[in-house]
Amino acid sequence: MTIITLTTDFGLKDGNVGVMKGVILDINPEAHIVDISHNISPQNIFEASLILWRSVPYFPAGSIHVVVVDPGVGTFRRPIVGQLGPYYFVGPDNGVISSLLKEANQRKWEKAFIYADDPQYWLPEISKVFHGRDVFSPLAAHLSRGIPFEALGSPIDDPVVLDLPQPRLLEGKILGEVIHIDHFGNISTNIRDEHLGQAQGVKVQISGHRIDGLVNTFGDRPVGSIIALYGSTGNLIISEVNGSAAERLGVRIGDSIVVDLLNIN
Amino acid sequence: MTIITLTTDFGLKDGNVGVMKGVILDINPEAHIVDISHNISPQNIFEASLILWRSVPYFPAGSIHVVVVDPGVGTFRRPIVGQLGPYYFVGPDNGVISSLLKEANQRKWEKAFIYADDPQYWLPEISKVFHGRDVFSPLAAHLSRGIPFEALGSPIDDPVVLDLPQPRLLEGKILGEVIHIDHFGNISTNIRDEHLGQAQGVKVQISGHRIDGLVNTFGDRPVGSIIALYGSTGNLIISEVNGSAAERLGVRIGDSIVVDLLNIN
Amino acid sequence: MTIITLTTDFGLKDGNVGVMKGVILDINPEAHIVDISHNISPQNIFEASLILWRSVPYFPAGSIHVVVVDPGVGTFRRPIVGQLGPYYFVGPDNGVISSLLKEANQRKWEKAFIYADDPQYWLPEISKVFHGRDVFSPLAAHLSRGIPFEALGSPIDDPVVLDLPQPRLLEGKILGEVIHIDHFGNISTNIRDEHLGQAQGVKVQISGHRIDGLVNTFGDRPVGSIIALYGSTGNLIISEVNGSAAERLGVRIGDSIVVDLLNIN
Repeated sequence: MTIITLTTDFGLKDGNVGVMKGVILDINPEAHIVDISHNISPQNIFEASLILWRSVPYFPAGSIHVVVVDPGVGTFRRPIVGQLGPYYFVGPDNGVISSLLKEANQRKWEKAFIYADDPQYWLPEISKVFHGRDVFSPLAAHLSRGIPFEALGSPIDDPVVLDLPQPRLLEGKILGEVIHIDHFGNISTNIRDEHLGQAQGVKVQISGHRIDGLVNTFGDRPVGSIIALYGSTGNLIISEVNGSAAERLGVRIGDSIVVDLLNIN
Repeated sequence: MTIITLTTDFGLKDGNVGVMKGVILDINPEAHIVDISHNISPQNIFEASLILWRSVPYFPAGSIHVVVVDPGVGTFRRPIVGQLGPYYFVGPDNGVISSLLKEANQRKWEKAFIYADDPQYWLPEISKVFHGRDVFSPLAAHLSRGIPFEALGSPIDDPVVLDLPQPRLLEGKILGEVIHIDHFGNISTNIRDEHLGQAQGVKVQISGHRIDGLVNTFGDRPVGSIIALYGSTGNLIISEVNGSAAERLGVRIGDSIVVDLLNIN
Repeated sequence: MTIITLTTDFGLKDGNVGVMKGVILDINPEAHIVDISHNISPQNIFEASLILWRSVPYFPAGSIHVVVVDPGVGTFRRPIVGQLGPYYFVGPDNGVISSLLKEANQRKWEKAFIYADDPQYWLPEISKVFHGRDVFSPLAAHLSRGIPFEALGSPIDDPVVLDLPQPRLLEGKILGEVIHIDHFGNISTNIRDEHLGQAQGVKVQISGHRIDGLVNTFGDRPVGSIIALYGSTGNLIISEVNGSAAERLGVRIGDSIVVDLLNIN
């Protein structure tokens, strides 16, 4: 059994995700398909990159992660297959692997990439508008049933990499930005636990609101409080206890956040 | 392993889809269940018919497709099981197979239908309001574990067939209508590639907007352009590049579209 | 194969449900995971309790039901594993099993509960904000691969039980309340078939609207009618034929309903 995960911006109404699963199971009936998200904001490669990076480490080694958020479908951009440490990636070469690649570099994982240009591993007919069905699902399915990674096309070493928004670390201050807003309205930023390090006290400013200090978890403050804490993958998040901080504060992706470090040891 | 797909208008909040899966797996633990859509517009048999038709060809032969969009639940309408070429259908006899049946006729597939009236292949207790759980899931599960198609009830040859909206082909002009709007706001029509045939130039009119010519894919025009192109199953679609054409043009299902054919060879 | 079901308020956008599946499959590749709902209203333990109770009886014996609707994540509340007759429950000890427990008591099922405090059955690192991933998914996965129930922690006999809203049975009258509104806008109440018993005629009052008598199913009245009938699990529901009764009547969870019993035999 090999796990194939799917991450797209296709939504769940039109049957397109089901069709991808049909294509995969027709090629490899033993594939075990898991949905990560099909509600990525349309064409938002940065969001897909973040969700992929957060999710991948929790899957078994050997899992194949298909990500189709593909504003360039039907124009020329390479279909690629990547190997990043114990994981495989399949999708358009548009930078959606940037966050995962950064992690791979930090962990010194072995990496390899294939420009998957051999049409024998695609469907026989290729539409101009649905490569998730015609190209990427078949590639993942063939890989999962044992076709060697190298056989899928030609080796490359220059996958597209996006400039991910980085926080600016100043004297006693960190300037970051909002990179995700989740289902509950929690606001996730690109400031991470390692940036704050040993700071004993912080003041957070976001959207005209000030928050003193970090808490450990939601239940540490009364319902309705606006709090700052670390999310489940180490990013600084701003939340409303049992409410939506994003709605309450009117915050959107890309908004800035300032953290003042009060007393660094 | 047999694949059972599910298409309903039940939504994903109330647990009803999960319950159908529990019923299926209780009867056949080896069934492989795949969701096609549970967000069909409530009671919209035409939409379900379209989604089913588009999805089925991508599933392995022998797959069993359960479609429960059932405004008549609890009143008298036959539960049916159909065999259309390599595929099986299970659902209420309300015409939801009409699009697939048209395709089956064009491809000269063998067809057979059973009025599935043998309660030994239903749950022991039948509610008046949830036959997806009580009738159709058990039927699919029994079929998937090897109960012969013919054993499920009595043969019939008159399944309900709906009048699907057909485009009108006039001299140098085609009048069609909008049959689907997808998650991205792409507008799909009942005009197909075979209708346009060898036309070298076209002008499209929809909702007061004029589009000159067809493009191959989204990326052929700048972001924000309104374009006409063929969708992934050959239907003419109207899209906004990286946007929602349906919202931009205020278009709804059933709206009309006119295509002027400029120079037919 | 063991079935593990998942019920959460996590939504389907952020990849958190996919991550839970990755964790489970990493521990037990043979687990068969089924989604019940991930669209429970945020932090709504009562709603999750209801959905769980309605769904569980349709799953095979031995199924493991994980429910993570967890306003107290990261504060002290016990992770528990419960055995209720043929089913297992895994989740925070916050009363979400109350409806199922009531059923278990009525059916005189054997019950046992474990405070799952042995960290060897959790992930190695435990965040403060995502115990669905770090604690509950691993517990379910270990249980599904054969770790004995008793080994997961220490026996307890005092799981948290919520006061579920009960209807008041008066002389010729029942006072109930709205406990769920489904995807179609059907209004479900805590009045059940056994409460109405042999009543031959009823008048229902809800939100200033009066309904005379019960019908068997939706199709018994014309489109647009407001009707009262029994839902698929025996609760009295108020519906609009092919419409949304909740929207039409402006009804919300917690609103009251009065049933007048006209002639009791």
